[in-house]
Amino acid sequence: MKELRIGLEGVAIAQSAISSVDGEKGELIYRGQWVENLTKNHTYEDILYLLWYGHFPSSSEKTAFVEKLIAKRAISDDLKELIRKLPKQITPMAALRTAISAMPVLGDNWPPAYEQAIEILAKAPTILTYHHNLMHGLPERQPNPKLGHAANYLYMLHGQEPSEVDVKALDTYWMLSADHDMNASTFTARVVTSTQADIISAIVAAISALIGPLHGGTPSFIDDMLDQIGTEENVEPWLRAQLEQGKRLMGFGHRVYKVYDPRAAALREMIKQHGDQDKFLKLSLMVEKTAVRLLKEYKPGKNLYPNLEFWASGIFRTIKMPQNLYTPTFCCSRIGGWSAHIMEQSANNRLIRPSCIYVGPQPKGNPPPKNLE
Amino acid sequence: MKELRIGLEGVAIAQSAISSVDGEKGELIYRGQWVENLTKNHTYEDILYLLWYGHFPSSSEKTAFVEKLIAKRAISDDLKELIRKLPKQITPMAALRTAISAMPVLGDNWPPAYEQAIEILAKAPTILTYHHNLMHGLPERQPNPKLGHAANYLYMLHGQEPSEVDVKALDTYWMLSADHDMNASTFTARVVTSTQADIISAIVAAISALIGPLHGGTPSFIDDMLDQIGTEENVEPWLRAQLEQGKRLMGFGHRVYKVYDPRAAALREMIKQHGDQDKFLKLSLMVEKTAVRLLKEYKPGKNLYPNLEFWASGIFRTIKMPQNLYTPTFCCSRIGGWSAHIMEQSANNRLIRPSCIYVGPQPKGNPPPKNLE
Repeated sequence: MKELRIGLEGVAIAQSAISSVDGEKGELIYRGQWVENLTKNHTYEDILYLLWYGHFPSSSEKTAFVEKLIAKRAISDDLKELIRKLPKQITPMAALRTAISAMPVLGDNWPPAYEQAIEILAKAPTILTYHHNLMHGLPERQPNPKLGHAANYLYMLHGQEPSEVDVKALDTYWMLSADHDMNASTFTARVVTSTQADIISAIVAAISALIGPLHGGTPSFIDDMLDQIGTEENVEPWLRAQLEQGKRLMGFGHRVYKVYDPRAAALREMIKQHGDQDKFLKLSLMVEKTAVRLLKEYKPGKNLYPNLEFWASGIFRTIKMPQNLYTPTFCCSRIGGWSAHIMEQSANNRLIRPSCIYVGPQPKGNPPPKNLE
Repeated sequence: MKELRIGLEGVAIAQSAISSVDGEKGELIYRGQWVENLTKNHTYEDILYLLWYGHFPSSSEKTAFVEKLIAKRAISDDLKELIRKLPKQITPMAALRTAISAMPVLGDNWPPAYEQAIEILAKAPTILTYHHNLMHGLPERQPNPKLGHAANYLYMLHGQEPSEVDVKALDTYWMLSADHDMNASTFTARVVTSTQADIISAIVAAISALIGPLHGGTPSFIDDMLDQIGTEENVEPWLRAQLEQGKRLMGFGHRVYKVYDPRAAALREMIKQHGDQDKFLKLSLMVEKTAVRLLKEYKPGKNLYPNLEFWASGIFRTIKMPQNLYTPTFCCSRIGGWSAHIMEQSANNRLIRPSCIYVGPQPKGNPPPKNLE
């Protein structure tokens, strides 16, 4: 008998050893590590290694891993030409997806391999910045092999070596957003992998899911909100007016977290350390405090707190990330998590094929006979 | 509490009024119609209309619908140039996906609209044949507005107006393969739609799922099998040798159908009417008969019969479809079913987000405190 589970809440589609979210307690662990403990002394590359292989790299493993990533950053002239042929009106996410979709699968289609994941992950920031610079009449910038993954992205974007503070900010954001158990895009990657499709197909499908605002979000709306609020005096009146009109407050609440999102808390801490003189930051802190208080008043029992997006937008402002690259920058990091899930799915694969309950009209009469002799 | 449902068998993720499969009885209905009854007096365009709008078109509705599809067939010079820039080694499925991924969304991203689906569906055969002809040094062929969807595809592929018999064969295949309730690619399209992503994103993700051989299949393997068998005398010894070695017989058995697949039966009937002198057909019929008998002997109780792919490969040979376009041709038809499901999902949307059961290591000690003052 079919059991109707719209949304699939509470249905586990896999046993997974990669990451675990406890929304009630506000906890996120990667491979047995509290995520907040990982960001201080590590880089995104370390976390990627941890998510993929289940342990931190030794010193020589790390060197080899980082070198592999660096070696794969450059994109071919053919791929650049394809990016130049993209329609002007498509978004950076669609551009990234299209470019990855056009990449030949390295080696065998099945099973997927981490060498293939490295290829995609290393090239994603190059594709995005190549496209961005092209669209804005900026010069093309070659990847800088002296820089780590986060620093090189900022370098290709801004054309100058980023400050350590900026690199740490992006790296921290990337570490915190690399994986989040069975979210919609990760699930999409696993469904596609379950058909024995190649890793390019799985990542392309996951990017498509992340394009949806219910998943990939709309972090630039938070900038818009702060812009509209403008001054500290205006915080409470503006927020109260929104709530009085029954409008949602952007950046507050999360489908899973019923307490403060540990990633948001870690970003908040990091941004405070690095930018406490910043006008926007002060405003953000006041918006947070006031919104949490007003949300308790207007939506009692709902437990709405700032989410990852709220503080991510603060990070993005700090590092001068263009607004239309907010979601693509999230995507760069999440490719790491998707890849871990693709490998886990493929290692113990079974086609994911749910069903539906038919509620349309029934045919009249008997089914036609099959003439099979 | 989370309930583990790997593969999601028996879990219904939606109530759907589009199509319904009964694998035990061997029945498939589209919007209250037995699928076998639809193919004789209808075209793919009629079935598309039925799947999308829930009823057959009136004469004027049909004219308008067909004209809309015809009007959208041409692809832009920019899209052609992008296709010319694709790496030579990517498959037709990846080429189709990449070209669709590069298409700007017509109108609003959300909610999706049938006007957008028409754009994708009408252009898919043009993209495929443009790419195919390019790869094989054949001249580019413009869509022919006098021909229906199936006839025009064959025309663009072969460069001459196809016979009525060939058109009917492809049209029948397309009608039978347009939808099949909650298969992996349709589910992927619905998961992506559930994030409020645009229809291009949902279709691109669904194509990615159909690329996997566990779903999109490998119909050319059936040609290979028939080629290897070669003669009627060789049928039983060859099949028996396969089964003795514990090998699967390509084209037999289906995840859902435990009796003869009604689509396979309808294709078998149609192909018999149109090509009963054909050497391959005679061989196919003998392979079918012998394989079913031997499968009862070697795998008793498994109920293995020829599936859609087995007879689809017969249709494809009849219409001289190149082997590497078998799955893409299936895809052209299924875009219709995906579009119906995308609209149904969006009309009553809820984010599809299952979970997983964490089986990795647990962190040591307490979670770090959140410094929120």
